[in-house]
Amino acid sequence: MPPSNKTLYGGETQKAVDNFPISGETVPASVIHWLGRIKGAAALVNADLGKLDPKLAADIATAAEAVASGEHDSQFPIDVFQTGSGTSSNMNTNEVLSALTGGAAHPNDHVNMGQSSNDVFPSAVHLAALDQATKQLLPALKQLERSLDRKAKKFKDVVKSGRTHLMDAVPVTLGQEFAGYATQVRLGQERIQSALVHVGQIPLGGTATGTGLNTHPKFAAEVRKRLARDSKLKLIAPPADPFEAQANRDALVELSGALKVVAVSLTKIAQDIALMGSGPRAGIGEIFLPELQKGSSIMPGKVNPVLPEVVLQVSAQVIGNDTAITIGGMQGQFELNVRIPLIARNLLQSIHLLSTTSVAFAEKCIDGIEVNKAGTAASAGGTLAVATALNEAIGYDKATTIVQIASKSGRPLREVALEQGVDAKLYDDTIDLRRIAAGNQA
Amino acid sequence: MPPSNKTLYGGETQKAVDNFPISGETVPASVIHWLGRIKGAAALVNADLGKLDPKLAADIATAAEAVASGEHDSQFPIDVFQTGSGTSSNMNTNEVLSALTGGAAHPNDHVNMGQSSNDVFPSAVHLAALDQATKQLLPALKQLERSLDRKAKKFKDVVKSGRTHLMDAVPVTLGQEFAGYATQVRLGQERIQSALVHVGQIPLGGTATGTGLNTHPKFAAEVRKRLARDSKLKLIAPPADPFEAQANRDALVELSGALKVVAVSLTKIAQDIALMGSGPRAGIGEIFLPELQKGSSIMPGKVNPVLPEVVLQVSAQVIGNDTAITIGGMQGQFELNVRIPLIARNLLQSIHLLSTTSVAFAEKCIDGIEVNKAGTAASAGGTLAVATALNEAIGYDKATTIVQIASKSGRPLREVALEQGVDAKLYDDTIDLRRIAAGNQA
Amino acid sequence: MPPSNKTLYGGETQKAVDNFPISGETVPASVIHWLGRIKGAAALVNADLGKLDPKLAADIATAAEAVASGEHDSQFPIDVFQTGSGTSSNMNTNEVLSALTGGAAHPNDHVNMGQSSNDVFPSAVHLAALDQATKQLLPALKQLERSLDRKAKKFKDVVKSGRTHLMDAVPVTLGQEFAGYATQVRLGQERIQSALVHVGQIPLGGTATGTGLNTHPKFAAEVRKRLARDSKLKLIAPPADPFEAQANRDALVELSGALKVVAVSLTKIAQDIALMGSGPRAGIGEIFLPELQKGSSIMPGKVNPVLPEVVLQVSAQVIGNDTAITIGGMQGQFELNVRIPLIARNLLQSIHLLSTTSVAFAEKCIDGIEVNKAGTAASAGGTLAVATALNEAIGYDKATTIVQIASKSGRPLREVALEQGVDAKLYDDTIDLRRIAAGNQA
Amino acid sequence: MPPSNKTLYGGETQKAVDNFPISGETVPASVIHWLGRIKGAAALVNADLGKLDPKLAADIATAAEAVASGEHDSQFPIDVFQTGSGTSSNMNTNEVLSALTGGAAHPNDHVNMGQSSNDVFPSAVHLAALDQATKQLLPALKQLERSLDRKAKKFKDVVKSGRTHLMDAVPVTLGQEFAGYATQVRLGQERIQSALVHVGQIPLGGTATGTGLNTHPKFAAEVRKRLARDSKLKLIAPPADPFEAQANRDALVELSGALKVVAVSLTKIAQDIALMGSGPRAGIGEIFLPELQKGSSIMPGKVNPVLPEVVLQVSAQVIGNDTAITIGGMQGQFELNVRIPLIARNLLQSIHLLSTTSVAFAEKCIDGIEVNKAGTAASAGGTLAVATALNEAIGYDKATTIVQIASKSGRPLREVALEQGVDAKLYDDTIDLRRIAAGNQA
Repeated sequence: MPPSNKTLYGGETQKAVDNFPISGETVPASVIHWLGRIKGAAALVNADLGKLDPKLAADIATAAEAVASGEHDSQFPIDVFQTGSGTSSNMNTNEVLSALTGGAAHPNDHVNMGQSSNDVFPSAVHLAALDQATKQLLPALKQLERSLDRKAKKFKDVVKSGRTHLMDAVPVTLGQEFAGYATQVRLGQERIQSALVHVGQIPLGGTATGTGLNTHPKFAAEVRKRLARDSKLKLIAPPADPFEAQANRDALVELSGALKVVAVSLTKIAQDIALMGSGPRAGIGEIFLPELQKGSSIMPGKVNPVLPEVVLQVSAQVIGNDTAITIGGMQGQFELNVRIPLIARNLLQSIHLLSTTSVAFAEKCIDGIEVNKAGTAASAGGTLAVATALNEAIGYDKATTIVQIASKSGRPLREVALEQGVDAKLYDDTIDLRRIAAGNQA
Repeated sequence: MPPSNKTLYGGETQKAVDNFPISGETVPASVIHWLGRIKGAAALVNADLGKLDPKLAADIATAAEAVASGEHDSQFPIDVFQTGSGTSSNMNTNEVLSALTGGAAHPNDHVNMGQSSNDVFPSAVHLAALDQATKQLLPALKQLERSLDRKAKKFKDVVKSGRTHLMDAVPVTLGQEFAGYATQVRLGQERIQSALVHVGQIPLGGTATGTGLNTHPKFAAEVRKRLARDSKLKLIAPPADPFEAQANRDALVELSGALKVVAVSLTKIAQDIALMGSGPRAGIGEIFLPELQKGSSIMPGKVNPVLPEVVLQVSAQVIGNDTAITIGGMQGQFELNVRIPLIARNLLQSIHLLSTTSVAFAEKCIDGIEVNKAGTAASAGGTLAVATALNEAIGYDKATTIVQIASKSGRPLREVALEQGVDAKLYDDTIDLRRIAAGNQA
Repeated sequence: MPPSNKTLYGGETQKAVDNFPISGETVPASVIHWLGRIKGAAALVNADLGKLDPKLAADIATAAEAVASGEHDSQFPIDVFQTGSGTSSNMNTNEVLSALTGGAAHPNDHVNMGQSSNDVFPSAVHLAALDQATKQLLPALKQLERSLDRKAKKFKDVVKSGRTHLMDAVPVTLGQEFAGYATQVRLGQERIQSALVHVGQIPLGGTATGTGLNTHPKFAAEVRKRLARDSKLKLIAPPADPFEAQANRDALVELSGALKVVAVSLTKIAQDIALMGSGPRAGIGEIFLPELQKGSSIMPGKVNPVLPEVVLQVSAQVIGNDTAITIGGMQGQFELNVRIPLIARNLLQSIHLLSTTSVAFAEKCIDGIEVNKAGTAASAGGTLAVATALNEAIGYDKATTIVQIASKSGRPLREVALEQGVDAKLYDDTIDLRRIAAGNQA
Repeated sequence: MPPSNKTLYGGETQKAVDNFPISGETVPASVIHWLGRIKGAAALVNADLGKLDPKLAADIATAAEAVASGEHDSQFPIDVFQTGSGTSSNMNTNEVLSALTGGAAHPNDHVNMGQSSNDVFPSAVHLAALDQATKQLLPALKQLERSLDRKAKKFKDVVKSGRTHLMDAVPVTLGQEFAGYATQVRLGQERIQSALVHVGQIPLGGTATGTGLNTHPKFAAEVRKRLARDSKLKLIAPPADPFEAQANRDALVELSGALKVVAVSLTKIAQDIALMGSGPRAGIGEIFLPELQKGSSIMPGKVNPVLPEVVLQVSAQVIGNDTAITIGGMQGQFELNVRIPLIARNLLQSIHLLSTTSVAFAEKCIDGIEVNKAGTAASAGGTLAVATALNEAIGYDKATTIVQIASKSGRPLREVALEQGVDAKLYDDTIDLRRIAAGNQA
């Protein structure tokens, strides 16, 4: 069924459209979908509890399902920069559902029964975030982790110069580096999982100020049960305290903080990969990135690390979004935080961006990376830090002298070492690049 | 003429669409429009300089004008999270203009003549920012300043309690407060103006790395002259140094920083207004805000400070955007900063949000504010800090004793003062609220 | 024993002192103490593994214990803004320990045996953070939580107006609000605990690049065992991956993110308390804060919420520190993050500030808060939002009309309701403030 | 004269010491010194205006001069995390000055005459910032600019590969790069200068709430005149509006924003220099940085870019401090911003850090940089982007084909070009590295 062209929303929605001509961007659709899910479940529960006519409840639930499916997205035209409680969008949902029941259900008395914007809107935001983090972001990060892991295995014998402070250090393998990246991404998933525990605690049932006034004592638990069953989101839970849950959006700040750590990790990985792919002739040149498009409108034949650049920009965006979310989180007052649309916009955007970017990075960049064997061989052979392996035999001070002479003169390390009295056999036994890269696992 | 349905872009654009399935959001239209303006001017200048066939140049210029007018916006489908130089969008523009000349102009050799993504894309971003800040944001802030100024005049005799640390302080007038707000907004305009001087310095003419390779020495100056003439943007200027201008986006970071100060100012103003309007019965209640819509889906008759909440959320967004821009600005390397689309997205969004919000705040909130006379009278009459006016006559220590007794007992200050030996006439002459509020201008 | 006056450090330390005349602030003492602990344990383990003479090891361990105890803090004069690996401070430690053995132990070959700055310095930072978070911050937050909890119990029957959007809302109890605050602080502890799991994973044993070159395979596990036993810090663990652990400081970024959420929570709590204490006559005035000092140098008898202001400033600092840490975390390259001193400085400062502030806030503010009974009674009696309780009986629309009339006219709600046909008994049964505040738990 | 050991401060100071056991860090000394200067000038002006006994005024002024000189710094023990108005430190100053007059001057009635913490404390912070920015930071940046400029001249003929997206681009000279850096630093000075205009506008004379109650109408202008004369700080000016100036610290947020741009610039410069110095054998290796100290406790002979790392860490700190300042700036309410000590701490720290770091970076790093001629020659000779110069003669598409063949095969560009039909003379005339680097200035 195509989106209806008929206007379903009513006067409060229209007022809000007029009042907020701010960004041209509406509340994230997933929040609207979850408002639909909540209101459908609420109607059925209210009927079960004997507070709402079952027929009316069923009609509301049917309408809510359509809203949840995205069928009526165009009926939600209010700007995301609106009243900080999301009341306008809650009213919008009430009005649309009322209209879909042919007006049989009153927007406030029936559709909104047992609810307040103050508990359902933040609940919808939490659930949208929980949903997308669980079903999109975590799988996307897992895919990226696997891509990195596959490269770690493939590159396990590719010895190259380690680098600390950007300066040549003792050799490592390219596989060791990629295994480190994969682990970062894996730990990022742990961080997100840990935050989702609190995101799953929703203020539903608190109504206007957390007291649950006008709501049946069993209402919230029954609605949560239905939502968890239908969505398979196991982390849906009661709030740790209803007043904490309504007055604060700390759990969303926490989740954004976890996303920020993921952005920090991805920044490191993308930057390393861009550096390793730099060149091809005047850079570090240890790997080749897939060629995806022309790199320059003026320099013929140029190829650029475009996917790492996307990752770096998305990461910066996620960190910027975290600042906005943090400020929004700080500004709750008394019984309600009224920066929820702001927080929702930034958080859901961050989740979406990290999801699409992780997949694109995996598929269009990591999966296609090839070793530049000449480059890794050159860097492995070049680093004077292999002299570290001699420390135990000749001491740090003596090894320092050898490296300094080699460095200043440009002469090969072996030549200088032997001249300085190091036994040739000791040198050759010790300075075995592959064994050095294996470290104490050799 | 309706937007054409025919695809005008070519293979490089399509590759970029495929490579960057990230946010679903395209490069800001104003950047595309300015790419159009630059390329139109470039073609005509290249013809003047004898480097391009005049007929071809005229055709490119005509096509560019259409792009600049927004006629072909749908032909620019590439995600804003793309290669960090904006090369994809520059290529997209070259391809569309080439197609609009019926293929007569080669995308690179003719449309892009004398240019590189590395100089035209950041130039387009600077000019879009300069344009919107000049033509939208500064007038919007001026409108807000005037609205605040009008209230300052209107409220100049409304005495109320001053508040420092949120605690009752010596009286002020509501007009003094609004005059302070107006001044904040005026200073904000100065801050933006000051940053625009550097934003106007564009890297055009540097081509790939700042050297100007492949560009006629007079090219950049002539293009700037045309652009300034057509746009009336007087701040368009050559770069302070071509390498500085191409490798860094510092001027955009600076402008974002100025917007951040404006956001800080607006936060203070909006928060104060929400506090002064709090109540109506259990809050501070010194002003009434216009009623715009229902404040609650459950609490009947509730009215909320929805516009101040928009201002507060937009301000938080602008500050978050500034973080993203700052990070993007830090990550330039060698001859180019490749976080330009990120920076453009956030900066132009901030400019737009502050523009629309300033107007809405002025028109839908400030202009309709009314004094709650009972509230201001009560606060003016209540504050014990009027005792400050007695300091000179009786000393700080004595005055402290009087205030402490009045505060602990709840008794009127005058009663306690007289009991403590203050002369009645002295008291009445000194404790004149309006004169106290006038301070040393009384 | 007084700190020795004799200079124990050597040439590398002196060079670093000369090279970094930046802030005048040294590396946090706790990091130095943990470098001492690690080196003491390392020496003993190296002896056990047959790599170091037992006598020399014992001498190093004795010296290390003195360093760990803070006895030689003055021997660590290097600026915290130094080389990003902390190599200078590691060398400083090696030199001081060598000197304390009378030079018997060589700084690099013996004291630093099996170690590199690149693994021991970040390990020391992790352990210092783990230590202080576990032994200082978590207990301080627990104390604050308990203080808030006690007030929640004490104030459980104090009914007052709820407030959403700063506007009068349905009544709540002061106890409900404080229980929400206590829960926020409790959840904050959970957030920190969750981050500490990753902070406990230390890169020790990786030496220069993560390979463990020059280190006995059993070295790291044995050193960790000793450290965990002596410190009782059970979370000390091997890294998830040695390369991840050395090249990134993600776990510290994560911990800082958790502290940021705590700062967000404390901001909300402190701001609420300042607002509730505002007045005494022209503010919200629902509670009295303890008087600690004169509030003004000019306004006699003024009392300010000085502790909440400390909390608010410390919270802003912690959030600022988080930005610095995030940037530091983003800038790792290849095998090492070289922003560790920066990260350590900010993270340990945040932990310290939150610890001392939580205790001071609990003891000097929360514990002394008293109800302003006149204030809470007035706000409870004033809020028109009690009409919400009538919704079920008369409908949202009818209730809206009643509230609007009462609000515009200033008349009592009951009077208007009865005039509008509400049954007096229904009204009186429904509008019972204490029951309304109890909500669906009534 | 050595610092006196006798306690000069009184009861309010002691209370504040007890109330704020937070960080162990006191208010920045420069703020105390400026409180001294203001109070000295205020006393003399009050005498001139006939409000204060001249002898008492002279005694206060003498005492104030001693405080301003730093002689009594140890008498200011209050934690910087204190009441947000700085009242405690103002009281501390009043008490110390009173004591230094032997008690003849009353702390409030005489020393604080015509003043309030609310106007003098922020004024002292502004003046301390103006002073240090003018006398320390701007000269330090000028020194750094000159060092970079000298290198720009010295390296003007050193051709090397340009790099965009980290990939080989058309050649540039090392001198061009350093000229870009110098310009960045010069623009940074402009940004700071522009912000200082607003910082110089001080709220002095507003007393408690901006009204100037209890202050002579000529007081502020006369005090400013004395301060400007004695300090030679020409930007000292009246506030744009007394209420704006007292309720907000926007000018400090603005200055911090300018420092943030400088930090962004320095980050780019330091990162480039570290990258260009990377190697020596497995990196980019185009320059040599001065060797200052051992780079590793385990890798013998390693040299690291320690000064660039300091610059990068300090820059991250300045950006973090800006976040704290921004949050502090947002939280003003009504007649006063009460996050001033927080703002002062972070802002003055940033100014100090950037000052010392700019000098150290110039003297210990930039001044000692040498070209690695082998490295620049190799990169200049390697980059295939020189083919860009052929565009005009053979077209972008043909040039692309040539570069792709050369890149894939590893063959020299000239060989491929000729094989593809490019005329040898055309090639040799066009591909002249030095001329290409000169671009359209050739």
